[in-house]
Amino acid sequence: MSLARLGEAGSEIPVVQVDGRTLDARSVTDDFDGAFLAADGIARLRAALTDLPELEGAADQRVGAPIARPGKIVCIGLNYRDHAEETGAALPAEPVIFMKDATTMVGPFDDVLIPRGSEKTDWEVELGVVIGTTARYLDSPDDALAHVAGYAVSHDVSEREFQLERGGQWDKGKSCETFNPFGPELVPADQVGDPQALGLRLSVNGTVRQDGTTANMLFSVAHVIWYVSQFMVLHPGDVINTGTPAGVALGIEGNPYLRAGDVVELEIDGLGSARQTLVQA
Amino acid sequence: MSLARLGEAGSEIPVVQVDGRTLDARSVTDDFDGAFLAADGIARLRAALTDLPELEGAADQRVGAPIARPGKIVCIGLNYRDHAEETGAALPAEPVIFMKDATTMVGPFDDVLIPRGSEKTDWEVELGVVIGTTARYLDSPDDALAHVAGYAVSHDVSEREFQLERGGQWDKGKSCETFNPFGPELVPADQVGDPQALGLRLSVNGTVRQDGTTANMLFSVAHVIWYVSQFMVLHPGDVINTGTPAGVALGIEGNPYLRAGDVVELEIDGLGSARQTLVQA
Repeated sequence: MSLARLGEAGSEIPVVQVDGRTLDARSVTDDFDGAFLAADGIARLRAALTDLPELEGAADQRVGAPIARPGKIVCIGLNYRDHAEETGAALPAEPVIFMKDATTMVGPFDDVLIPRGSEKTDWEVELGVVIGTTARYLDSPDDALAHVAGYAVSHDVSEREFQLERGGQWDKGKSCETFNPFGPELVPADQVGDPQALGLRLSVNGTVRQDGTTANMLFSVAHVIWYVSQFMVLHPGDVINTGTPAGVALGIEGNPYLRAGDVVELEIDGLGSARQTLVQA
Repeated sequence: MSLARLGEAGSEIPVVQVDGRTLDARSVTDDFDGAFLAADGIARLRAALTDLPELEGAADQRVGAPIARPGKIVCIGLNYRDHAEETGAALPAEPVIFMKDATTMVGPFDDVLIPRGSEKTDWEVELGVVIGTTARYLDSPDDALAHVAGYAVSHDVSEREFQLERGGQWDKGKSCETFNPFGPELVPADQVGDPQALGLRLSVNGTVRQDGTTANMLFSVAHVIWYVSQFMVLHPGDVINTGTPAGVALGIEGNPYLRAGDVVELEIDGLGSARQTLVQA
């Protein structure tokens, strides 16, 4: 079972995908958001599965992000050794935290806008973590994964000049309109198993650029959630982007940054695949 | 006329304060949030003023932040010459942008929590700008102030070790629980007049620590809004903290950082005053 949202932006219908069928979840919840997750929504969905009707015309609908209105998007920088090395940065002694405007979240097949004035729009495939229950000053990383509702493919689109050359605080290059395609689906945590054993890949115009595994994270998902909870409160529906492996344009000879018309494809084992076309803002 | 929200956290009542009276605004809106502002809410409030009943027992109620659920809080770093100098930072060539978890917003008289493990919790009085209409790639700073719903006193509480010594991305020291007391009131922009002519002051345990004026901003409110709109979309209900003048603990000899029991008082000309007690998290 996985969760998705289908329909035009702003009026998506929550659905469950199971055994090749798409079931209408509106009898259980108006939407998949923080309030739904906080009220044990995934367990309620499972309990209701046999009662949910099939959604007609599902195949023709736009795919939205699988969760609505995340409260915040927290990002972890330089969390794969090979990526830190390709950027020329030192390996971080502890997780680097930055944030992304939560309204940058769009659907997994929506266009991504190249910001006006941008010459260095770059890609980053990441394991996206959706928080299911409030995490505040967790005692140990061992307690952390119990706070995860599920996982999804996340694209942490980044403008390198804005991020690195315009003052040094990264948020400026991370929060541009449409800069966080998310999905296609939210897979409940208990179905994903070990989050440190997932291959993740990204290609641009058919050329494989990133081909990594979450086994190579410097700080595990559990460590990251525990760590972030020492500095801020994580609420149901919040998202953590857990870092990207090597292979971004910033680290490739010639820096082949994204241009209008480019097509980026992303996939993570067990979490599905996404595909976005770049368009000039 | 100013807008406020009274009552327990999470169930505040929207009210209008005018001529010493507190009027119940619930016949106009459920709450003061982005949707209210986007639907020309302040004009509707004004039109309805004579019909609003007085709220009984208003004086005994907790004062909440004057807006509910901001979509994001964008902060401008080092935006006063004297503050940049006291921190030892170079004057920025353009605005420095970072972000604060929007759920850090609390009422103007609520306790502020000193994070666990913190030794360097610091104060920052700031002019808070509340966005009223969507601002995206504004053509000119001249267009910017038309997008402001109003202004409020904002306390950009900051943990300097987390901000500056734990990886270098500032968000880590800006997003701790309760780190953005806001209010007491939102004053509509047309009543504030020139946002570059406001005195702002902060004291700790009765000792004046910050005594500045928005005339000394390096980048004006209009410039900041125009600038931010080139990097991200500003939505109704979003907040911009526009920077702090000199006088923070980081810049004072002996670095008298905040301790449990300390009392911080803040005020900005025409926007009222706030007062918070520090409590250990």
